[in-house]
Amino acid sequence: MNQTIFLKWLQEGNINIPSTLLTNYKQLKINEKELVLLLQVHYYLERGNDFPTPAEISAQMTIDINECHELLSQLIRKGFIEILDGNSDTGIRYERYSLEPLWNKLIEQFLLNNKKEEEALIEKEES
Amino acid sequence: MNQTIFLKWLQEGNINIPSTLLTNYKQLKINEKELVLLLQVHYYLERGNDFPTPAEISAQMTIDINECHELLSQLIRKGFIEILDGNSDTGIRYERYSLEPLWNKLIEQFLLNNKKEEEALIEKEES
Amino acid sequence: MNQTIFLKWLQEGNINIPSTLLTNYKQLKINEKELVLLLQVHYYLERGNDFPTPAEISAQMTIDINECHELLSQLIRKGFIEILDGNSDTGIRYERYSLEPLWNKLIEQFLLNNKKEEEALIEKEES
Amino acid sequence: MNQTIFLKWLQEGNINIPSTLLTNYKQLKINEKELVLLLQVHYYLERGNDFPTPAEISAQMTIDINECHELLSQLIRKGFIEILDGNSDTGIRYERYSLEPLWNKLIEQFLLNNKKEEEALIEKEES
Repeated sequence: MNQTIFLKWLQEGNINIPSTLLTNYKQLKINEKELVLLLQVHYYLERGNDFPTPAEISAQMTIDINECHELLSQLIRKGFIEILDGNSDTGIRYERYSLEPLWNKLIEQFLLNNKKEEEALIEKEES
Repeated sequence: MNQTIFLKWLQEGNINIPSTLLTNYKQLKINEKELVLLLQVHYYLERGNDFPTPAEISAQMTIDINECHELLSQLIRKGFIEILDGNSDTGIRYERYSLEPLWNKLIEQFLLNNKKEEEALIEKEES
Repeated sequence: MNQTIFLKWLQEGNINIPSTLLTNYKQLKINEKELVLLLQVHYYLERGNDFPTPAEISAQMTIDINECHELLSQLIRKGFIEILDGNSDTGIRYERYSLEPLWNKLIEQFLLNNKKEEEALIEKEES
Repeated sequence: MNQTIFLKWLQEGNINIPSTLLTNYKQLKINEKELVLLLQVHYYLERGNDFPTPAEISAQMTIDINECHELLSQLIRKGFIEILDGNSDTGIRYERYSLEPLWNKLIEQFLLNNKKEEEALIEKEES
């Protein structure tokens, strides 16, 4: 039994996302291809790759580089991904993706759904 | 500050999947729509709903009930989802989904990739 | 290469807790033994065992059954664990643990810390 | 409802560990204080702090800096934590912790337990 390969699996680790993303992306007007692309960006960010290229992302998806580039631009326009400027320790300027806009929209949607449920409950009690 | 809604968010919890699923589904001949459907099934299983209906699943996706039904059948035919028989505490027979075939294929792919990498490494050293 | 054992590891799964529990338990007056006991209860709840016995819990800890029983009682008295009544599908009454009180205290502490940080920031800006 | 604080909670994120660590640490001769210390190191590593000080770690535990220093040394001696040398992008040498030895011991224990279970099963069938 090869232990090394086991360690490798363990170190590949897990992707961990709020369940609400899976249950609410449709309401956020995100489709399945876009969702998986967002998960890929999340995956790269978690592993310390702040600005994965369309080549890197599309290599793990059923889309080609051009479509990946187009989808990324669209997700930025629709306000789910943001490009931020940063400075490395050595003072070199670089760009990086942030998914903060996605999380903000998700929280907003969660709070909205919750408010609607409460209102529906009150209406029901009153009638 | 409403603490109740915070607790609700915490209890919605997280979806946790092996990173390798995100990086290898393409090699397993799964596309993005199928991947998200598998994640939805995983989500329902984790929450104790063993046999979610196409209606329940499609409600959280950009597909309708018919397409969902079709995709589920396809994933069963392609050997990623299995339907198992079970008996409840009260002796009632029921059906439930299992993702064990998916995990098995994923492990197989992971081991295969690993073997290829090792062989490439040896070839490189020998040349 | 034994694939079965790989599947078994994957199915053992992961324990997933809010990072804030690890960074705030001390402020909640929880010590390390109590923290690990709470994690064990969390582990059993996640796996569908609603009311693990002191024997089951202590088997995975460096404490004996008596100490485990004592620590559990203490965590209930201190308001971190709650025992709830439930009814099974077949109408049999049963008891189960809930960690909702723990999550509530954790959220409370998180909001309190946040408020303090904000106040400290305002004070700094004003001076 | 303050959305900012919600985002902060989401960004604090989760700690994710193999369930087997929680169910096997006792067999690895780790006690609860040591386990939580290992979780703290894991937490800091995940957040990009490669070499947390005893002051940083003990601030989140019920132990003082001296005891923390002592426990860290002990976990290194017992072969659960390793100190590795690294070089930063700017060529500065630095030290960092690695939990690879812990994961290796955990896998070893998991494989051993599995082998014992299989042997017990065979013995049972033969008798």
